[in-house]
Amino acid sequence: MTLEQLIEQIKIKKSVLCVGLDTDLDKVPAHLLNEEDPIFAFNKAIIDATHQYAVAYKPNTAFYEAYGLKGWKSLEKTINYLNTHYPDCFTIADAKRGDIGNTSSRYAKAFFEDLGFDSVTVAPYMGKDSVEPFLAFAEKFTIMLALTSNPGAFDFQTQKVGESELYKKVLEKSKSWENSDRLMYVVGATKTEYLAEIRQIIPEAFLLVPGVGAQGGSVDEVFKYGANKNAGLLINSSRGILYASAKDDFAEAAAAQAQQLQSQMAAHIEKLG
Amino acid sequence: MTLEQLIEQIKIKKSVLCVGLDTDLDKVPAHLLNEEDPIFAFNKAIIDATHQYAVAYKPNTAFYEAYGLKGWKSLEKTINYLNTHYPDCFTIADAKRGDIGNTSSRYAKAFFEDLGFDSVTVAPYMGKDSVEPFLAFAEKFTIMLALTSNPGAFDFQTQKVGESELYKKVLEKSKSWENSDRLMYVVGATKTEYLAEIRQIIPEAFLLVPGVGAQGGSVDEVFKYGANKNAGLLINSSRGILYASAKDDFAEAAAAQAQQLQSQMAAHIEKLG
Repeated sequence: MTLEQLIEQIKIKKSVLCVGLDTDLDKVPAHLLNEEDPIFAFNKAIIDATHQYAVAYKPNTAFYEAYGLKGWKSLEKTINYLNTHYPDCFTIADAKRGDIGNTSSRYAKAFFEDLGFDSVTVAPYMGKDSVEPFLAFAEKFTIMLALTSNPGAFDFQTQKVGESELYKKVLEKSKSWENSDRLMYVVGATKTEYLAEIRQIIPEAFLLVPGVGAQGGSVDEVFKYGANKNAGLLINSSRGILYASAKDDFAEAAAAQAQQLQSQMAAHIEKLG
Repeated sequence: MTLEQLIEQIKIKKSVLCVGLDTDLDKVPAHLLNEEDPIFAFNKAIIDATHQYAVAYKPNTAFYEAYGLKGWKSLEKTINYLNTHYPDCFTIADAKRGDIGNTSSRYAKAFFEDLGFDSVTVAPYMGKDSVEPFLAFAEKFTIMLALTSNPGAFDFQTQKVGESELYKKVLEKSKSWENSDRLMYVVGATKTEYLAEIRQIIPEAFLLVPGVGAQGGSVDEVFKYGANKNAGLLINSSRGILYASAKDDFAEAAAAQAQQLQSQMAAHIEKLG
């Protein structure tokens, strides 16, 4: 998917909603556990119920690796289902990878070519040559951690490096990397007051914003401080949508949650013109 | 494996050698490609040929994920083979993971419990609550990136945060985390001059040292600046051992390379007493 196509979908659906597919067999409705592949069965039902309100889906690889080979197979089926049935949705492998150059190339190939994701999340700690192998893929996007939504974000990310915080240094430096127009950034919604400053450094880039809902962030605040002329946002919700109900009506309940978030987003997207 | 058992193995084998199983089907001898699982066949041959010289094995997960389901299966077979036939060897999943707390728990479970690795590498960018879920596992070790061996290490890791560099801040802070006695650290051999300073901050912890061989580091320098009373080192070599020969004699050639490194290490380990 190109950036233009993503922006078009945001306008069509009046949504920047990303549904985080953090599928946990301890939380899915019990009747699904009899299915051959309960993780995929759950994901398929969630995707079918929410796709009209969502522009992106984001499986977090940890939840699949936790089930070993079976989990990896569920991940493959999930991305194949999305690519086959909903090619209008942007896909994110939330993997937070990063390694030395020749090794990062392996991860990039795995997520972009073999699995067929539109994008993958990466960690910045190992610097330029750990991220550029991901950026080498045309029409693919690399979403780098900048300011995350967890308490540990204050351990290193917000520490002052010279004049400014580490996460700002990460933003600044990455702008000079090859194919940096293929970069997006993770910026937690629990720190909306930082969004305006972040927008001064990277006015154009898309921001993937976790932390809305269960972690306490607000859609209105994220738009107020983080939106640019194309919206430039993907706002993620995982648990709030996936586990809106633990009963047979889980898909309808998920759809209702997704619709509620989408309607909050629509008000802001309409104003962008 | 406990820390005492690892230290005992180092003394018995007079080695701190870690063999990096970065298995690449473009580089393994052609005749292995006819095997049902060429990655595992290659790993098994390498492990059988080198185990008397090595105290640790470190598959990098990127090389397995790059082959999808098949690769994940090869990884499972490799760790099972190690745990079954060579329980005296320490095992490292070089995964460089790290995510918000409940998600890191998933990765920890996958690598420690399901796959049965002794240790896993993690990235520090997301801070304390992204690493502590790994540290919660008894008799398991979490090897955190501190100063890596790639050029990008200078982008952020060596940047000054207040009085000292970011990687030193990472070392300092991590000492106060819960179960920090289960921490080890990745410190690249291409920066041996930093090792002495690192040892002032973390005198006891084990260091996993990549970058010897193909990346230019020296065993003697690593011992000179990095060893403590128990050695406290795991020195990794990947390509130099795995691809010592591309022909039928690849396992013998790997053994010869491993033995050469081990004999350099033995001289230093004997001096520790």
